[in-house]
Amino acid sequence: MSAPYTLILLRHGQSEWNKTNQFTGWVDVRLTDQGKAEAARGGELLAEAGLLPDILHTSVLSRAIQTANIALDTADRLWIPVKRSWRLNERHYGALQGKDKAQTLEEFGNEQFMLWRRSFDVPPPPLPADDPYSQVGDPRYAGIDGQVPDTESLKLVIERMLPYWEAEIVPDLREGKTVLVTAHGNSLRGLVKHLEGISDEDIAALNIPTGIPLVYRLGEDLLPLGPGEYLDPEAAAAGAAAVAAQGKG
Amino acid sequence: MSAPYTLILLRHGQSEWNKTNQFTGWVDVRLTDQGKAEAARGGELLAEAGLLPDILHTSVLSRAIQTANIALDTADRLWIPVKRSWRLNERHYGALQGKDKAQTLEEFGNEQFMLWRRSFDVPPPPLPADDPYSQVGDPRYAGIDGQVPDTESLKLVIERMLPYWEAEIVPDLREGKTVLVTAHGNSLRGLVKHLEGISDEDIAALNIPTGIPLVYRLGEDLLPLGPGEYLDPEAAAAGAAAVAAQGKG
Repeated sequence: MSAPYTLILLRHGQSEWNKTNQFTGWVDVRLTDQGKAEAARGGELLAEAGLLPDILHTSVLSRAIQTANIALDTADRLWIPVKRSWRLNERHYGALQGKDKAQTLEEFGNEQFMLWRRSFDVPPPPLPADDPYSQVGDPRYAGIDGQVPDTESLKLVIERMLPYWEAEIVPDLREGKTVLVTAHGNSLRGLVKHLEGISDEDIAALNIPTGIPLVYRLGEDLLPLGPGEYLDPEAAAAGAAAVAAQGKG
Repeated sequence: MSAPYTLILLRHGQSEWNKTNQFTGWVDVRLTDQGKAEAARGGELLAEAGLLPDILHTSVLSRAIQTANIALDTADRLWIPVKRSWRLNERHYGALQGKDKAQTLEEFGNEQFMLWRRSFDVPPPPLPADDPYSQVGDPRYAGIDGQVPDTESLKLVIERMLPYWEAEIVPDLREGKTVLVTAHGNSLRGLVKHLEGISDEDIAALNIPTGIPLVYRLGEDLLPLGPGEYLDPEAAAAGAAAVAAQGKG
């Protein structure tokens, strides 16, 4: 098949810890009812646009998988093939995992807080392997053994995500498949940074709203032929502003 | 890895057309609320028994996929790898697809009705490709082209199911994975017939209840070391009796 190729990115809807304003990272929390409704809306938008995925790629975190299952059920595409990988997981938030965002802001001050949240290459302090919120020993990561992270910067997320993009997603695109990637704020920011050639500095200002499909048409070089388009641009702008405001309240 | 290998079979819960007592076959109807509750119960039984699947195989019909998604959500195993195949689909019911079971019984009489339902190698009349309940042209079967059936006997189901068993499921078992197969009354009857060496005559009397995991321990030859065990034997006996009574009312 030849270009343009179609890539759809979908960030999971509200999770229980989005609601309680805790850093989540690799902790496997579920969607709230609102998050499920967002996922269903995402599926409706796909169906209304006639953008029907031929294959799904997800992280191994339940909130992304729930989002995909609900969106595909709504779009009547439950039957498409699925591939999952830890390489599409949210950024590991290190010692911040499980912590209240507002409390962390108060405790460490705005400068340190924003550095951890938005700097490109400064990871939070590592999470001890015996912490209740550590994923060391979780059977879903048995295959990656010593590679289970104890903290990550966005830079580290991109370093473990891009090999999956190249090895697993690009071949599906080249076969002419419409590819849906259902993942997380930071794994998707990393992918958008790569696709749009955003600088290490400018990526700090990019916020991806939840539950609204972001569609790219890619050329033969697998780079976008134009800016990514949200299927509901108004809701996307409001959602991105809401993400940017997180932890401020 | 060496034997015993663990295989778990799960028949989808009540679908909309189970409820309205219509022949379903390859028509892609969804689970009812009761069917979703059955699927959740199936997942609870797996978790309570500590039987946690490492990989899932499903048909490409939504009711089996919904059942797997709900059961794995309940058992906290959403993240396992998934493979889907039309070869695990329900038996294609030919011209009976969409027809009311009680009405069909009345119209054709008990002998013909039971022959279509329970004979090993007599398929119902074929379904015309332009029938609203035909799957010819359904994009989920684009890969199998001319092979979309217009009717099937249980014999034909087994003939298209066993190559998938050998090529895709057996290798996962041999790797020591606990394999979950979420499918349908007749594709699972076909698999049980193969595993237990049931004769073409005796298979007519075998009924598999919905939503209750059926567990086999298999030896090196991939044959059962003992009879399959339902995780809730009492509910399974009641469920099998209910299946046997279908269409009688």
